[in-house]
Formats: sequence, structure tokens, C-alpha cells
Amino acid sequence: MNRRKFFKNGSLLTLGTTLLHPFSGMANTIQYDTEGKNKKAKNIIMIVSDGMSTGTLNMTDLHLSRKTGKCSNWLQLYKDNRVNRALMDMASASSIVTDSAAASSSWGGGVRINNGSLNVSENGEEHLPIWQKFKKVGKKAGCVTTVPITHATPAGFCINSKSRNAQEEIAEKYLEQKFDVMMGGGNNYFSPEKRKDKKDMYKAFASNGYEVVKTRNDMFSASIDKPILGVFEDKGLPYSIDRENNKELLQKVPSLAEMTKKAIEAMKDHPMGFVLQVEAGKVDWAAHGNDITGLIYDQVAHDEAIQVAMDFANQDGQTLIIMATDHGNANPGIIYGKEANDNFDSIQGYSHSNEWILNGIGKETSISQIKERVHYANNFALTDEECKQLLNYYTNLQTEKGLYNPKHLPFKILAEIQKQYNSVGWISMHHSADYVELALYGSGSHLLKPFIKNTDLHYLMLEAAEIENKF
Amino acid sequence: MNRRKFFKNGSLLTLGTTLLHPFSGMANTIQYDTEGKNKKAKNIIMIVSDGMSTGTLNMTDLHLSRKTGKCSNWLQLYKDNRVNRALMDMASASSIVTDSAAASSSWGGGVRINNGSLNVSENGEEHLPIWQKFKKVGKKAGCVTTVPITHATPAGFCINSKSRNAQEEIAEKYLEQKFDVMMGGGNNYFSPEKRKDKKDMYKAFASNGYEVVKTRNDMFSASIDKPILGVFEDKGLPYSIDRENNKELLQKVPSLAEMTKKAIEAMKDHPMGFVLQVEAGKVDWAAHGNDITGLIYDQVAHDEAIQVAMDFANQDGQTLIIMATDHGNANPGIIYGKEANDNFDSIQGYSHSNEWILNGIGKETSISQIKERVHYANNFALTDEECKQLLNYYTNLQTEKGLYNPKHLPFKILAEIQKQYNSVGWISMHHSADYVELALYGSGSHLLKPFIKNTDLHYLMLEAAEIENKF
Ligand SMILES: [Zn+2]
Ligand SMILES: [Zn+2]
Repeated sequence: MNRRKFFKNGSLLTLGTTLLHPFSGMANTIQYDTEGKNKKAKNIIMIVSDGMSTGTLNMTDLHLSRKTGKCSNWLQLYKDNRVNRALMDMASASSIVTDSAAASSSWGGGVRINNGSLNVSENGEEHLPIWQKFKKVGKKAGCVTTVPITHATPAGFCINSKSRNAQEEIAEKYLEQKFDVMMGGGNNYFSPEKRKDKKDMYKAFASNGYEVVKTRNDMFSASIDKPILGVFEDKGLPYSIDRENNKELLQKVPSLAEMTKKAIEAMKDHPMGFVLQVEAGKVDWAAHGNDITGLIYDQVAHDEAIQVAMDFANQDGQTLIIMATDHGNANPGIIYGKEANDNFDSIQGYSHSNEWILNGIGKETSISQIKERVHYANNFALTDEECKQLLNYYTNLQTEKGLYNPKHLPFKILAEIQKQYNSVGWISMHHSADYVELALYGSGSHLLKPFIKNTDLHYLMLEAAEIENKF
Repeated sequence: MNRRKFFKNGSLLTLGTTLLHPFSGMANTIQYDTEGKNKKAKNIIMIVSDGMSTGTLNMTDLHLSRKTGKCSNWLQLYKDNRVNRALMDMASASSIVTDSAAASSSWGGGVRINNGSLNVSENGEEHLPIWQKFKKVGKKAGCVTTVPITHATPAGFCINSKSRNAQEEIAEKYLEQKFDVMMGGGNNYFSPEKRKDKKDMYKAFASNGYEVVKTRNDMFSASIDKPILGVFEDKGLPYSIDRENNKELLQKVPSLAEMTKKAIEAMKDHPMGFVLQVEAGKVDWAAHGNDITGLIYDQVAHDEAIQVAMDFANQDGQTLIIMATDHGNANPGIIYGKEANDNFDSIQGYSHSNEWILNGIGKETSISQIKERVHYANNFALTDEECKQLLNYYTNLQTEKGLYNPKHLPFKILAEIQKQYNSVGWISMHHSADYVELALYGSGSHLLKPFIKNTDLHYLMLEAAEIENKF
């Protein structure tokens, strides 16, 4: 598929042309040669793909290269020799396999803590979150994400909480700290109808001077003279691929790149600079569900956010961009076989996530309806036997507990079936202990060594911004 | 486990003390600072772990760190900021997922060819293998491996062959080219009793001036004034862990580090320098078998060979070391869970590969014998049900065809059972398309960019050695 066609069919169209080079009105582009790298980072943008195994990065790059002739922004930076990169050991205090709360806390608080907590050690000791440190020295600070804004990865940069699950409290703690841009999903933790305590957090934010926005257009027109709270869904935002193929969602929910652009615009003119965390949080959810369509297209969305951040950094000349993930998840990969190329390329024609497929099936669905639905989403025809396998699950449905609950629908069965058609395999539906890929671009990127511990990144951010760690 | 204990129980004991710093009699150690890096590489040592997914590198590092307090040599080089590293795209001409023949040919011939061939394109065009290029400019050249020396990875640096399976012919082609050190397994392709054509290749090599050795001690005492052929097993060498726990094998078969040391000794005084490929070939076989014990301990053996090469390079000061793999395989990883740490650490107590376990079971084996065997090798007790699962396979045994034939024994079932006890998962029993880890140390290492195609490495080796590509 040529590039023009991609623009027609692909997600870039939906971004609008201004997003392609949103900051082109600014000063001349700089390239962060050795000199630029060694400069102080006035601004830091950390772009996290949550739960991105190395295979997720690789497959997405391969997907883009084969579909558009142009590789991912992340790997183009490698090809151009413009980044410093490292492997990062993400172990938590309690396990060689971290969860997102301990992972974000290791960066956010500079200390390894147990899985499940946010910047609170087992003995109760609290560690000052890094976005609070940056606020104290006068910078603006914000987070945007495709999962609830009260979720582990943004929360780990912002607040202390014994438990990551206390998302209602976390929303209140955000207000106390007056972060400047907080956008994502999570209406369940802000709305008086959804919160257990019936508090109206929207009202609380608004009466404290926030612009509160709940749709994409409201976000676009929100004043940048006030702090912004944006909440666009009850839980996580829809997968990119499902959003792109649904007009209503397209209008209601912004993309990660659009939120990133808005957040930068809202903070970039602050004299003391800003720090921003951008999270492609549903890459992790897709990996938990072995949901290849959710995974690859949300990783593409992450890569589009990198483009927005890089465009800004190249104009600004004083920005550090950190491209990272907090842990592997499910270690997906393309498996050897005669049909590997064609199978993998078939994903280019997938139009909906596995979550979308499975949410549209129930006990009453017929075999032919299942066939039609899967064919509509994936362009292949299930056998009767495969349809029965899926349907069995609904007939015997028992809800299970768990953070992301990937097992309350037959995600595993569907991924096993798809594997025959797309050659993608998974080791599990959980996080893995792999050392993860990390890349730094721009001011301060020279500080990165080829192997670091997660906690080192906390101190690297402070050092890049030339902030003494005395709080 | 402390370091002293590791020396007592671990494989380092078996290497003998001289191997720990084998080249310490040479000139002063150098550290390849910027100056050393930019020097011409008189010698090149490429150390390949075949089929090493990123998870294999990571898990082995974690295994060593937790067992001995000291990480792998490969990752210690990252921590010390002493290497240039890259992701490498290993696709072949025929597939995004390469086999070892096309992979080695991409490095060896500088051209992507179809899976299954060795430096011969689909149209019949032959590409001059890189070790022949180095021979032509006067260097010595050799290969050592833990699989047959006629196998794809060494062959791809040495010869042209339409098919990787023509291993009898490949043995003859080696002799034509007079490579200086060739050691590994593969008696089946040299011995008159095993070859289909009944030729005695040992005699042919000997009458052409080679020292021919078939045991570890013969290898140690082989004259370095002649070229050396060393063949120690019919097919591949035993897994490191099985060798370490079998006195007979320990005496008969050298370790990869020992072969590396001998090869360097035999070539290092050549005025024009030398090139050496070292392959941990059974890392790939272990991944094909989802055999965690074979995998981790053979990756450790690979890491010990790195130490030998680095010791030489540090004394010599004119050597490039390339640490590489040719493709991912099975993408193993440690899976999230409360018991992940203890489970993973239990592998430290494993004493035999899954191949060893399964080769000792047959139709007549009793449930209690299976329990005893697995407990002896892995320190956990199978349930009756699990034993029956394994035994079923032997009762219904049907041989299947395939290069490594991991399926002729119940490797997959055993790995599934073990997963509950060691938390390690696998996506398949095949190669994967992942971009792979590559690291360069020493003279010429500055030439590496953060992302390369497999074929780029061919030209990098020539450039590092300052050899014009006119052949
Ligand atoms: Zn997760
Ligand atoms: Zn293989």
C-alpha cells in the first residue's frame, strides 16, 4: 500500500492535517547534535507504551514498514542514529516481574516498592513523586493516557497511595496537587453518579479553576490559560482501531496524539518549562487479552504521539523525550512458517479489536453470526468447530475477578484461532520479566548508559533538568 | 548462592583455572576507549548464540545475577558502557522469519537469500562467503560450534550450497578451502561408517595436513602449527548442563569456551591476524524444544566463551568482538505471579535438560520411575496425571520429520508442566521475526549504528578490518 493510500484509509487522516506538524510555526528545527544533547532539558516528555514487549515494538515497526513503506518513528530514530538507548531492568521490590504501579513508582519515586502500591514502601515510607518535584521548582506538569487518568502509570508520577486500586482517592489527590493537564478515561472515578461516595469531582476541579472537558471538540477548544481535566470514557478509551472505525467514538474521544498536542500547547509557553507523561495504556490491556489488533494499532497510536512530541522538541530545542515501556507483556512474536509474511500482512486488513469481536457475542448468537462478525473484523472465515469453541465460553460463562479481567471473555481461544491466520503467538496473558527497551532523544539524552535500573531514570530526569534532588 | 559455592558447583570449575584468564601472559590489558575503538581490527571474533530471543539473554543474565551475584559478561559490558549495540533486522529473502542458513548467509555473503540455502540466491548466483574473503587477504579463519560443524551458522561464513542439508558435501567444501580451525559435532558427516558415500573425511583432512582430534584431551594437546579439525559427537554436542553432570562427557567433549580458547591460541600468532566464528548452536535447539535447562545453561556457556574472547581482545588490543544472534526463537519469558521469583530461582537446581529427561523415558517406564527421573532433574514432584500425560506420548509415538525434530518427544507437554513450577512461558517451538540484539566490543565497534539490516554486518566486518570488498 502506498503512502497516499495509507493517509486515506489510515488513522493519520483522522488527526487532521495540522497534527502532522503541529508546532511548525515555531523557531527553526534543530537536530540535537552533540551540542543540543548536552543542553539542560527545560521540558521533559515521557512517552510510555505500557506493557510493550520487544516483540510489540518490532511487530508494529514491521507492520508500518510493510503497509506504508515507512517505519515507525521510534525505530527511524535508531536508523538515523539520533537517540541513546538502553535495556532497563524493571523489577519491583516484591518481584522480578513488576506491575505497572511499582514500575511507574520506580521512575516516579526513585525507589523500588512492592507490586500494587504507588510510591509507598512496605514500611509505610512515602517517596515524593517526580511530577510533584517538578511542580515545586516551578514547572507545569501533566499526564495524558488512554486508560483511566487515575490508573497506575500516571498516578506513579503524581501521588502516593498504598493501593493502586484507590482510584477515587487518587482523583482527589490530583486536585490537591493542582496538576496542569490531566486527560484520559476514568469517568467512574470523577462522576457523582459513578463514585461510591457520590462526590462530584468535576465540580470540585471546576471550582478550583480547571477547564473540565468531556469530548474531543471540547478539548480542542479548551482555554490553555487554565489547568485542564479531560475525561472521555467511564474506564479506558476505546482501542485506536475501534475508534477509527466508529464515527461516534471518533467525534467523542481524542487520539493519544491529539491529547499530547493539546497538553504541549497548554504548557509550552510556561517560562519555567513543563513535564508531561504520555501513556499508551491500552497496549498493556491488549497484551493481557492477546488482542493483536488492539495491540498493534494502539502501538501505532503511541508512535504518532512520538511524532507530535518530536515535532515540538525539534522546534523548541530544550526538550528531552523519553520513549519507554514499564514491562513486557505476553512476549508476542511472529512465528516461522511458509505463510508467515502473508499471515502477518493480513493484520493490515483487520478493522476491529478482539474486544470488539467478543463483546458482540453472547449466548444467543448463532454460528453464522459469529462467522460474519469475525469475517467483518478479520477477513477470514472461522470453521463451525471454531465458532462452537467460542460460543461454548458464553454458554458456560462465569465472571472472574482481576484488574483487567481479560478472562471474562474467550480472548485466549480467539487468539489461538487467529494464530493460524496471522502467525502471531503469545507466551501468556500476563506481564513478563524481560529487560525493556528505552530510548532518549533531545536535551540530556547523552546521560543514558546502555543498561540501567528503573530507579536510575528518576535521577536521570532530575539531572537532565539540572534540578538538585533536595525536597 | 555465593560466588565460592558457584565455583564449586558450577561449570566454571570444569573449565580449569587457566581458562578464567587464559591470555594473561600477554601484554597489558587495554580497555578500548575511543582511541582503541577507532583502530583497525586485525582480528574478528563473532560469537553467535543461535536462536536467542531477547528473553533468553535477559533470563540468563537474571539467572546468573541471582545465583552468583554477578551478571552475564554480555550485560556487564552494557553496564560498563563499553559496547556499541543495535537492533538487527534478520529477515531473509523469502520470509520475515529467517532460518539459520539464510541468516548466516546474510552476514556471510552480504546478500539476503531464501531460507534453506547457503550463499546461493534463488537464481543460482553465488556470493563469496566472508571467511573466504578473509582467507584471500591472508588471515587465518575458523569456526567452533556446539552443533555439527557442517551446520548452517558456520557453513554460512564458509561455503556456498544450494541446500543447508547437504552436510556431507559441506564437509568436503571445508577441506577445499583449508579453513584453519573447525571444531564441533558432526561425526555423521565425516566418518566413513556414517557417510552415505562411505568417504573417510578424517583421512582426507589428515592427509591434507590437518590435526584431527576427537576428544577434549586430544584437542588440548593438538599442535597449533597445523590446521585443526575437531569432531566430538555424531550430531550436536551434549547440552552444557548434561555434560557438566556426566563425567564421561566432561572428559570427551570440550566446552564452547575451551574450543574458543584453543581456536584463538591456534590462530593468534598469525602475522596477518585471524577471524573466528563461535556458535552456541544448541541454544536454538533448546528453544525449539522449549527446554529451559538446555537453554539457560547453554547461554551461560556462550557467555563464558565471551569471557575468553574478551580476555584475548583486552590483551591484544586489535580485535573486534561481535556478540550476536541470528533470530529469536520461542520468545521465552518469566511470567507474572506471586511465586515468580522462587519459581524462576528453582532452575538453579535443575541438573539435566528436558532432552535428557525425555530420552530416558519409554513405553515401559512406570509412573514412579517418571516421577523419580523428573525429581532428580528438576527437584519437583509430578502428579500421577502429569506422568500419564507424558507417558501417553510414548505409547502413541509417531515419528515426525523436521530439522531438529523437537516433536518426536513430548517436549511441549513437559514445558507446559514445568511452567507451573518455573514460571517460564514460550510462544511456540519455532523461530520468531523479532529484531535481535547485537553488540560490538573492541576495534571497529564504533562503526555500528543503533539499527541495521543483517547484510550490513557483512560490510561492517570488512570495513572494521580495512579490507576493500574487491574479490
Ligand atoms: Zn498490565
Ligand atoms: Zn532453529
